[in-house]
Amino acid sequence: MSDTLAPEAASSQDRRTVRVELGERSYDILIGCGLLAEAGAHIAAVLPKARVAIITDETVAGLHLKPLQASLDAAGIGHVTFTVPAGESTKRFEIFERLVDDVLAARLERGDAIVALGGGVVGDLSGFVAASVRRGMKFIQIPTTLLAQVDSSVGGKTGINSRHGKNLIGAFYQPSLVLADTAVLDTLPLRDFRAGYAEVAKYGLLGDEPFFSWLETNWQAVFVGGPERDEAVARSCQAKADVVAADEFEGGRRALLNLGHTFGHALESAVDYATERLVHGEGVSIGMMLAHEFSHRLGLLPQDAVDRVEAHLTEVGLPIRIQAIPGQMPPAETLLDIIAQDKKVSRGQLTFILVRAIGDSFVEKGIDRTQVLEFLKEKLDA
Amino acid sequence: MSDTLAPEAASSQDRRTVRVELGERSYDILIGCGLLAEAGAHIAAVLPKARVAIITDETVAGLHLKPLQASLDAAGIGHVTFTVPAGESTKRFEIFERLVDDVLAARLERGDAIVALGGGVVGDLSGFVAASVRRGMKFIQIPTTLLAQVDSSVGGKTGINSRHGKNLIGAFYQPSLVLADTAVLDTLPLRDFRAGYAEVAKYGLLGDEPFFSWLETNWQAVFVGGPERDEAVARSCQAKADVVAADEFEGGRRALLNLGHTFGHALESAVDYATERLVHGEGVSIGMMLAHEFSHRLGLLPQDAVDRVEAHLTEVGLPIRIQAIPGQMPPAETLLDIIAQDKKVSRGQLTFILVRAIGDSFVEKGIDRTQVLEFLKEKLDA
Ligand SMILES: NC(=O)c1ccc[n+]([C@@H]2O[C@H](COP(=O)([O-])OP(=O)(O)OC[C@H]3O[C@@H](n4cnc5c(N)ncnc54)[C@H](O)[C@@H]3O)[C@@H](O)[C@H]2O)c1
Ligand SMILES: NC(=O)c1ccc[n+]([C@@H]2O[C@H](COP(=O)([O-])OP(=O)(O)OC[C@H]3O[C@@H](n4cnc5c(N)ncnc54)[C@H](O)[C@@H]3O)[C@@H](O)[C@H]2O)c1
Ligand SMILES: [Zn+2]
Ligand SMILES: [Zn+2]
Repeated sequence: MSDTLAPEAASSQDRRTVRVELGERSYDILIGCGLLAEAGAHIAAVLPKARVAIITDETVAGLHLKPLQASLDAAGIGHVTFTVPAGESTKRFEIFERLVDDVLAARLERGDAIVALGGGVVGDLSGFVAASVRRGMKFIQIPTTLLAQVDSSVGGKTGINSRHGKNLIGAFYQPSLVLADTAVLDTLPLRDFRAGYAEVAKYGLLGDEPFFSWLETNWQAVFVGGPERDEAVARSCQAKADVVAADEFEGGRRALLNLGHTFGHALESAVDYATERLVHGEGVSIGMMLAHEFSHRLGLLPQDAVDRVEAHLTEVGLPIRIQAIPGQMPPAETLLDIIAQDKKVSRGQLTFILVRAIGDSFVEKGIDRTQVLEFLKEKLDA
Repeated sequence: MSDTLAPEAASSQDRRTVRVELGERSYDILIGCGLLAEAGAHIAAVLPKARVAIITDETVAGLHLKPLQASLDAAGIGHVTFTVPAGESTKRFEIFERLVDDVLAARLERGDAIVALGGGVVGDLSGFVAASVRRGMKFIQIPTTLLAQVDSSVGGKTGINSRHGKNLIGAFYQPSLVLADTAVLDTLPLRDFRAGYAEVAKYGLLGDEPFFSWLETNWQAVFVGGPERDEAVARSCQAKADVVAADEFEGGRRALLNLGHTFGHALESAVDYATERLVHGEGVSIGMMLAHEFSHRLGLLPQDAVDRVEAHLTEVGLPIRIQAIPGQMPPAETLLDIIAQDKKVSRGQLTFILVRAIGDSFVEKGIDRTQVLEFLKEKLDA
């Protein structure tokens, strides 16, 4: 035990904790460099007698599984590991069914835990497994992508995809603990890091101008790693945690988290989720740009705010134009149809997250289809 | 609308309401004769704009689907119906996956509802579908077996079976409304009615001597139908609702509901859930008898209480001896192994619900295996 506790003690001053306040379902997100090697001790503190099933993908397993297993061993936590293929197509029924069966075959009980080691794909899939086995096992997230650390591992949305659309099958299911080791992000391909960064910028844009401003100054340090990265992850988690605490089951305010996502999802869907053409965060980046431009078009947002968003996203290397997506895009009508079918559409009305100023977003229901169509036509022609 | 409301108005004095108090997830169970024909009006009152997907089984569809559809039509509620085969084997992954896909293909939204019309099989399966589509749609139970009315439709346990055991995959998911039409029970085969009655008697035995005593006097009227049946269903629902409200996620008191179930499940498992040999309620009846006898053996319960239980279960025609199960039974050792593997076993300890008096049960953890083995051997030899 002392072996495992030593690094924690040594580095604990560098740990940040974000508490997600959800009554009985409250939990901590620990953020810091090197947390993976302390995972066993942290898990033992939260779930004293639990055994765990690690679910991870092949890529992450190759990079980060051993230190996790070693730290579980050091903490005396029994574990099994189930590895799934990397990539979005892993979020499907067949793999869900197999994992549920694997976990049951390993005779894990309700008080035992599923540990998700990986990006959003592994986190979403594993969370739904944890929610469903024995009507709910314990669940721990160890997110290894920036997107997963700042977004998918916070808030309790879990699930898989359906042929009818993404994330249509799943559960709201909260973890007992999230361990965001910011050092594991160093092995992420730059493109994935950047895509996750779009969600970081989103928190500034949707509700926190000072944070956006801080990012304008410090984004390079966030990319490099160190205290600024930890700070950016912690502020993002805090922002999401605040919204989730106010609206766990997504009735109202939580919709603001979809800033950039209505357009973004339409673009992702238009390329059939072909990640070689567009990954989620890139869609969000273009979508946020469009949301700000559309808000300006509606007379809600001054041009200089639009320029500021454009300058920052461009500086970090994120795409901001539909034209940046390689290959043919469908016409504006098709994009609009996709938007209308999107699950964010409530009872046939078009809902958008619009912006009044940097850091001041709001939900606008009942947006006129023709205005969106005109806007999209122009953007596709531009 | 007036057409639909008329019968409700006419018969509303005969309706009983049991409120399940679960904070934001609270809901009503309406109990009475003829509720099916009023379902549309009741659903519209709870979920004003919802469309619904009815899930039912082939047997129930033939008997009770039309009046439900007609009442939805009368209330202006759009609906689709998905019919699954009758029987326990319907609670499996493949059918779950197909229903999820059907519901998504029907483009139901999160505010729309799944309506389960059927016994516990349909209720458990449909509830898990409702919990999983779009991370949770609205859910309404219209239980059509006595077991479903007094047990499976109350409490929010939903799920399907795994090759590793029954009900191992699912969710805790509460309905928005339960409509228990006691008249639909008239089409139930007597054997199924009787099996459900075992659960009714269970509520008396586990915590309510006056109710058990009332049943000793009034059981025939419960079988015949009318106000006594409504009363028995209402008191049973109330008993379960009280326990569930105190312990939604099954940490403590809820375990009392398993009176008779540790032995009962072992017997069901021993016959491989072959319902022609043993249905659940029959297993519970034998199991309750065994639980009382075992409590007596441990010096906890007087013989006259054991006799009273035996007399009542025998009088209503329920089996009380392992020997009543047709065919060969495995030896005591095998039954004990099954009990030890049962999910009610927490962390390797044998847990039993024992009885101090009629209506006074309690959870006893750490029961000695050899005592159980001796007891079972004797019972198998008897
Ligand atoms: N639950 C939510 O609230 C929520 C929110 C946003 C997104 N999501 C979901 O998240 C998913 C996207 O998440 P993602 O971007 O993390 O995708 P991902 O999990 O597919 O990870 C991206 C790639 O990075 C690899 N990877 C992960 N960690 C790595 C590391 N440390 N070093 C090197 N490679 C690593 C993975 O193997 C994968 O190939 C989508 O399915 C999306 O629907 C969920
Ligand atoms: N969720 C819970 O808390 C809970 C509690 C107890 C049992 N259960 C589950 O419930 C299931 C057993 O329930 P069940 O006994 O209702 O089984 P069931 O749903 O299979 O119904 C028994 C039979 O009766 C038929 N039937 C249903 N209603 C009828 C009617 N009105 N007239 C004529 N026939 C009718 C069905 O088609 C079926 O053939 C099991 O799967 C068990 O695991 C769940
Ligand atoms: Zn996103
Ligand atoms: Zn039962």
